[in-house]
Amino acid sequence: MYNIALFGAGRIGQVVHSVNIDAVLIASATNTHADLIELAAKAGKAIFCEKPVHLDMTRVNQCLAVVDQEKVPLFIGFNRRYDPQFSLVEKRLRAGDIGKPESLIIISRDPAPPPVSYIKVSGGLFRDMMIHDFDMARFIMGENPVSVYASGSSIVDPEIGQANDIDTAFVVLRFPSGAMATISNSRRSGYGYDQRLEVHGQKGVLTAKNINENTVECWTDAGCTCSKPEFFFLQRYMQAYQAEWAHFVDVLKQKTTPAVSGIDGKLALYLADSALESLRTGKEVALTYNK
Amino acid sequence: MYNIALFGAGRIGQVVHSVNIDAVLIASATNTHADLIELAAKAGKAIFCEKPVHLDMTRVNQCLAVVDQEKVPLFIGFNRRYDPQFSLVEKRLRAGDIGKPESLIIISRDPAPPPVSYIKVSGGLFRDMMIHDFDMARFIMGENPVSVYASGSSIVDPEIGQANDIDTAFVVLRFPSGAMATISNSRRSGYGYDQRLEVHGQKGVLTAKNINENTVECWTDAGCTCSKPEFFFLQRYMQAYQAEWAHFVDVLKQKTTPAVSGIDGKLALYLADSALESLRTGKEVALTYNK
Amino acid sequence: MYNIALFGAGRIGQVVHSVNIDAVLIASATNTHADLIELAAKAGKAIFCEKPVHLDMTRVNQCLAVVDQEKVPLFIGFNRRYDPQFSLVEKRLRAGDIGKPESLIIISRDPAPPPVSYIKVSGGLFRDMMIHDFDMARFIMGENPVSVYASGSSIVDPEIGQANDIDTAFVVLRFPSGAMATISNSRRSGYGYDQRLEVHGQKGVLTAKNINENTVECWTDAGCTCSKPEFFFLQRYMQAYQAEWAHFVDVLKQKTTPAVSGIDGKLALYLADSALESLRTGKEVALTYNK
Amino acid sequence: MYNIALFGAGRIGQVVHSVNIDAVLIASATNTHADLIELAAKAGKAIFCEKPVHLDMTRVNQCLAVVDQEKVPLFIGFNRRYDPQFSLVEKRLRAGDIGKPESLIIISRDPAPPPVSYIKVSGGLFRDMMIHDFDMARFIMGENPVSVYASGSSIVDPEIGQANDIDTAFVVLRFPSGAMATISNSRRSGYGYDQRLEVHGQKGVLTAKNINENTVECWTDAGCTCSKPEFFFLQRYMQAYQAEWAHFVDVLKQKTTPAVSGIDGKLALYLADSALESLRTGKEVALTYNK
Repeated sequence: MYNIALFGAGRIGQVVHSVNIDAVLIASATNTHADLIELAAKAGKAIFCEKPVHLDMTRVNQCLAVVDQEKVPLFIGFNRRYDPQFSLVEKRLRAGDIGKPESLIIISRDPAPPPVSYIKVSGGLFRDMMIHDFDMARFIMGENPVSVYASGSSIVDPEIGQANDIDTAFVVLRFPSGAMATISNSRRSGYGYDQRLEVHGQKGVLTAKNINENTVECWTDAGCTCSKPEFFFLQRYMQAYQAEWAHFVDVLKQKTTPAVSGIDGKLALYLADSALESLRTGKEVALTYNK
Repeated sequence: MYNIALFGAGRIGQVVHSVNIDAVLIASATNTHADLIELAAKAGKAIFCEKPVHLDMTRVNQCLAVVDQEKVPLFIGFNRRYDPQFSLVEKRLRAGDIGKPESLIIISRDPAPPPVSYIKVSGGLFRDMMIHDFDMARFIMGENPVSVYASGSSIVDPEIGQANDIDTAFVVLRFPSGAMATISNSRRSGYGYDQRLEVHGQKGVLTAKNINENTVECWTDAGCTCSKPEFFFLQRYMQAYQAEWAHFVDVLKQKTTPAVSGIDGKLALYLADSALESLRTGKEVALTYNK
Repeated sequence: MYNIALFGAGRIGQVVHSVNIDAVLIASATNTHADLIELAAKAGKAIFCEKPVHLDMTRVNQCLAVVDQEKVPLFIGFNRRYDPQFSLVEKRLRAGDIGKPESLIIISRDPAPPPVSYIKVSGGLFRDMMIHDFDMARFIMGENPVSVYASGSSIVDPEIGQANDIDTAFVVLRFPSGAMATISNSRRSGYGYDQRLEVHGQKGVLTAKNINENTVECWTDAGCTCSKPEFFFLQRYMQAYQAEWAHFVDVLKQKTTPAVSGIDGKLALYLADSALESLRTGKEVALTYNK
Repeated sequence: MYNIALFGAGRIGQVVHSVNIDAVLIASATNTHADLIELAAKAGKAIFCEKPVHLDMTRVNQCLAVVDQEKVPLFIGFNRRYDPQFSLVEKRLRAGDIGKPESLIIISRDPAPPPVSYIKVSGGLFRDMMIHDFDMARFIMGENPVSVYASGSSIVDPEIGQANDIDTAFVVLRFPSGAMATISNSRRSGYGYDQRLEVHGQKGVLTAKNINENTVECWTDAGCTCSKPEFFFLQRYMQAYQAEWAHFVDVLKQKTTPAVSGIDGKLALYLADSALESLRTGKEVALTYNK
């Protein structure tokens, strides 16, 4: 991991200040994000930063204050909002296709756990993995939850437990409207990248199913088989990555403002931190937003 | 609601003692179950009783003590264990098709809420509706949970809230193995009876999907439509009712003993009562079985 | 094979004439159908006869003349018209859900070929197996075809070819409206009973898919599997058998007249015979109905 | 339509002979293909030409003779062979997943008919539309058919009939092995681009289903809806177009030779011409390849 502060004062600093550069895409290691955001913001550049802003809330607040002060657009890469499946669910829900939302079920499972070395610097399952689902819950429901409960296990890989993290988690969120959500995460599916959600409303349910590798089926005496879900995020969210970048280009062209901003990054982290507190205490954690 | 004590001493009492009768099927109102079970047990008859034994745990314990003493077979009608889909999932899980279970997701939604008059005598969502899912979780996972957390809302129908009940609930269970389960209930789906579950293991997932009304699809410019899930329990669980009765006949022929006994009825009620406690306190409730 | 003429003059004859009998169900060997129909007709009984009336058209005509003369109701058991899937397709097509029909595709495949001994007395694939699909084509399209073309192979089992029959066939029908149909038959699927159809109209398509054995899916690294189609006709058409019998009971109660009559049996045989002629000549056979 | 001969002697001729050009992609109007192929062949360039080579067989033969003489690689753009679904079916069939093929069913339907002005110069449904399916049948079955039967109607649009073409067709092919195929075409589906096939073998069936627009389902009281098939060829075959071009680049790099050559283009046209003959005569047309 290079020293971004030193390096930032050097070549990156020069590059960022170039008049030939309109925007900065930050896709480096998590612990460099906040520094680089501040650097780019002070240089007056538009910023596209992969989630999360930082793993520490105090540092996030500092960083976002700099962005506010410099008045540069900051887009946080919660790519799943740009997945054609999930964004269609959100659009149809808003259009009233199933009435007011009442229950949301998010299932999000990786094909296989990462190495424990990654787990140790990841910030833990809630901040590294479920943070996407916390953002998705806010995106779909259109309101901020008022409480969170979390339960977790290290049942997939005991080494993950020894590293003081969990690999399997169930979370329950409550919203001001009385609606609720559950999120189910696992570091291992065994069959590819499992990314589904269903939102139930007054008149029915909208579901986004997995994208499978192909449409070929084989029926024999052994049963009927079809292809598995796409292997992992690069395959599953290819269209989402393209769409979020297209959105950022629109931001650069001043056609729009960032649809996912620093505050969204901060609130997803707040949910993750609160989930961790719930996991430790066995109690619902009340959530407040009054600042 | 008739007085079973009085009536039991009269005609029902006579009938139950008839030598021409081998077994008693109890499908009357919930508050008559325990009395009738005791009556039949004392008459030495085999008993098939619809769930629950009783809504009050003390009364359940008394009643099961009588059954124990009289040494009659008692089958509790948790019909869903006999659904060909769910029982196949359990059988394949036990056979090792996906390895050891890690996560269970149960989705159980009624087509539309019952009248509030029914809600008031039902014992509430956990004891009336989710009790089936608590039993299913024990059946699938093959172990008793060590904790339960419950969250609920009356978002479907405000009158249900005024009757001091909920119509939507999310529950999280933890098992001794570290496995977890979530149960999602709603009194209203809007599209029929939604009865699904998926159990994730080391090597993959086993899913039981809804049974739809028919296999006809219509593809037009407006989209591709298929039929809805079967309307309600009479349609969805017709095969399950037949299969559980066939099992009871095997019990009568002394080929087997009841696969779902009074203790299963009692433990499902224990989970329901504990969920209610969690709902009220916002905390996980630890579960103990050492008696 | 017993001598129905002799036997008919004896015990069957007595039974059929009993005043305690309202109706006769004929499910005996094909070569006894016409004799038994005549016997029952002359006794003034309502008749439910499994298809076909007879394998020889001259004999069919004689037999139906007797039925006409005796004015008894005759229902021919083309059970598939009563399959809830196919009858729903027909009903929705008539209701205009996809506009006027243009193309019909029928896929009908048995799980495995019967013994060659059966093949030899069956009348051949067109009269024994595809006769159901000829009737289905008339039922769905609501008009009689004006030409038939047939092609066939004995590729599944060479012994079937040696018995002068085919085990695989493709047929094309043309209708007066300009609509067309294709029927695909095979004596062997390898995965159960494959019974599907799709009718394309001006505004879209209505499809009846297979009924599968259960709704359980298993997703693992090896792919996603679901259950196979129901094994054979007894499983697949159980509801159809019940529904056609319920219809016949309505006929007996004089609530309705037979929806599938002797003339339907005769026309299906006519299509089968004409398909055989086309198979032999390599030419379309023009069909006429002017009598 | 410009005069390619004149123009070819001028600017196109100059361009084609440029030493900076390795290959020529011909995607112009059908009646210019043969001239441009000859021009590029004589310039010694590798050629990627959209199907068909030409609508007239004599001209095709002349053109392919020039290509042979000049020894340049010629790839004919039967893009569907590069569709990931169909190529996977072919690969798995060759790998023996379902044993030897016995029956092939190809369903190919456009979303809506083209203008009649296009129909008039298209060469007709068999040469313009079904030619893709003829090539697909040869590709999947791995052998050349020995006979073809065709039936057709102009039921979708009477103007197409007035232009002496059909808009709906069923074709039956027979192969030397005894296997058979049916192809069903329509100029109008009403629900998008319907591109499916299923090949049945000794042990089961391999099916390639449509690619749908998205994975979102909506279940309400009105039924369960999912998205339609992709609208037309640009959406459905985007991956196929990329893959066939990648193959052609490999040809240019001399890693391989064209997997779809001029002879494939010629044979697909031969099947189309023979289908037209069958349509006119009502007879199977025998196919020969011995030259």
